[in-house]
Amino acid sequence: MGKIAAILTDWFEDSEYSQPVQAFKKDGHTVVTVGPEAGRTVTGKRSNTRVQIEKSVSEVSVEDFDALLIPGGFSPDNLRVDERAVSFASDFMEANKPVFAICHAPQLLITADVLRGRTLTGYDSIIQDIKNAGAKFVDREVVVDGNLVSSRNPGDLPAFVEACLKKLE
Amino acid sequence: MGKIAAILTDWFEDSEYSQPVQAFKKDGHTVVTVGPEAGRTVTGKRSNTRVQIEKSVSEVSVEDFDALLIPGGFSPDNLRVDERAVSFASDFMEANKPVFAICHAPQLLITADVLRGRTLTGYDSIIQDIKNAGAKFVDREVVVDGNLVSSRNPGDLPAFVEACLKKLE
Repeated sequence: MGKIAAILTDWFEDSEYSQPVQAFKKDGHTVVTVGPEAGRTVTGKRSNTRVQIEKSVSEVSVEDFDALLIPGGFSPDNLRVDERAVSFASDFMEANKPVFAICHAPQLLITADVLRGRTLTGYDSIIQDIKNAGAKFVDREVVVDGNLVSSRNPGDLPAFVEACLKKLE
Repeated sequence: MGKIAAILTDWFEDSEYSQPVQAFKKDGHTVVTVGPEAGRTVTGKRSNTRVQIEKSVSEVSVEDFDALLIPGGFSPDNLRVDERAVSFASDFMEANKPVFAICHAPQLLITADVLRGRTLTGYDSIIQDIKNAGAKFVDREVVVDGNLVSSRNPGDLPAFVEACLKKLE
């Protein structure tokens, strides 16, 4: 069974954290919450999900995990100003380990400059940013390009979760 | 005296709307609030500023105004999925009329694809997006490049407002 890092901070899109994590755990995987500060409780943008950060991004390494989940909302906008979070995401891409990116999650990968030549989807508002980052944008509920699984928004969660679980098999 | 369109929707950075608008009005200029829907009241991300939208972006034209103010926060992320807002911003750039962009405001201009070859600043999180859009990013409190006046964050507001007022002279 896999060990998945979920990287998030305040203003994440609630369901984009809670639904994948619930499905991963139900399937027997382990999820560790990672953020700028261990022990802090972060709140989703809809204010109905509160998550305690178990590990600071400083104290984890890509070698500790089998996959990375990046929930959307405005959490990726907050994370991408933290060089440690950018490096952590970048390490998963370089190691070719599964990265699950939904909604605004590609923003973190854009700052990491790891999307050149890749194919993915993402939230409507960042389509131009994805294209400008040298990637091919596809308007589909889920896109799997090698290690990278991406979806557009909370409406895509069933397809997203299914594709993530398949990648973890 | 000038007539300025302030384009915004929910989750704008409160002070990035209120401080420039207060200064513009004090200097004798007129400000018209423009958004996706006329008559709606939108709320800043700090929840302490509520603004009524006077004109829908459908019913205004660049010819009606002398300048455009784009406050930051998460309002630009919301506006850039609205093609009418993107076109409206684009029209100011094409007409070479002053555009005042602070914090996340360049996101709207990135979707409009009007930043190639331009020099500007913006919020830390979108530095890579600005560069990928073909622009030169400068880390300074205010950058004036022709019609485009840009600043990084609320801390830059005094310099931003001063540069905007000068451009309106």
